[in-house]
Amino acid sequence: MNFCSQCGEKVRLAVPEGDDRPRYLCDACGTIHYQNPRIVAGTLPVLGDKVLLCRRAIAPRKGYWTLPAGYMENAETTREAGLRETWEEATASVELKELYTLIDLPHINQVYMIFLAELRGDFAPGVESLEVALFDERDIPWDALAFPTIERTLAHFFEDRRTGRFSLHMSTITPEDRERYFGSA
Amino acid sequence: MNFCSQCGEKVRLAVPEGDDRPRYLCDACGTIHYQNPRIVAGTLPVLGDKVLLCRRAIAPRKGYWTLPAGYMENAETTREAGLRETWEEATASVELKELYTLIDLPHINQVYMIFLAELRGDFAPGVESLEVALFDERDIPWDALAFPTIERTLAHFFEDRRTGRFSLHMSTITPEDRERYFGSA
Repeated sequence: MNFCSQCGEKVRLAVPEGDDRPRYLCDACGTIHYQNPRIVAGTLPVLGDKVLLCRRAIAPRKGYWTLPAGYMENAETTREAGLRETWEEATASVELKELYTLIDLPHINQVYMIFLAELRGDFAPGVESLEVALFDERDIPWDALAFPTIERTLAHFFEDRRTGRFSLHMSTITPEDRERYFGSA
Repeated sequence: MNFCSQCGEKVRLAVPEGDDRPRYLCDACGTIHYQNPRIVAGTLPVLGDKVLLCRRAIAPRKGYWTLPAGYMENAETTREAGLRETWEEATASVELKELYTLIDLPHINQVYMIFLAELRGDFAPGVESLEVALFDERDIPWDALAFPTIERTLAHFFEDRRTGRFSLHMSTITPEDRERYFGSA
């Protein structure tokens, strides 16, 4: 951030009075520009023994497999965001079940929220997907998954499926967890 | 938003190519300024039969009672945000338990996440609180609560306490739910 989105003057990074961390401040109009984490909402669509994955048509991680998920938009709920992303990326209708993984990624200011879902009917690649397919556990492309959040969510799912008990899993992804996917850059 | 925070030129509101909703666009440098919901993280601190509430020293709803909660910051986890807000508003240390309410407020682009917590030791008003106190169920100031999210979280808690089973409650607050607190403006 270089300029104030309210008045167009230059901003500077400094700790406001009474605050404890640096913010972008506009000395011209007095606006404090707060920046906050974003929610990535999505689903784990299940049909019988199989789960639905999408192969990414866009960066980052183009060509790698992921669950349908993306940034939650203003004016929608977390569940609506999960449904919308599932439709946009996989042209798939699902019946949403419970919130299944909630994963913090503090180093990139994201919070993932993935819902269990039952796949209803057909599916087809959306514009952000190269292909969409159903996978048995033994066929999951573990070495070609797009993000550590996806690997972790799928691992929880197949583990929980052995006991039949699915509950919310909360955890944190560290920079080290991400290195395997993105390198240490 | 009036100006581009990257280059300082005027932005305009329009639907980008390939998108389906209006964004603030900068024709000068090409930046698309996405805006996304914010997470409000907090806790429901419990000590024996009592719960801890804070009376707000700041707008909105100054003078009304609330649970310690506030905007999640970049570079922290949801749990860290709940702990930090509890310390800032009530100078209270807590042991975090499970995520208890997750409440969407799509009309104001917020998602509340309140954790159950066990209060440890003392407490005192932080700079954003006029006072902090412990309440039995029969003494909860239901007519002087700050926000509908707080009323709903407390109602779930006292209901669940009768059965001893505490599980995640997900729900949505509508503009109508908020009218009782803020009027219909």
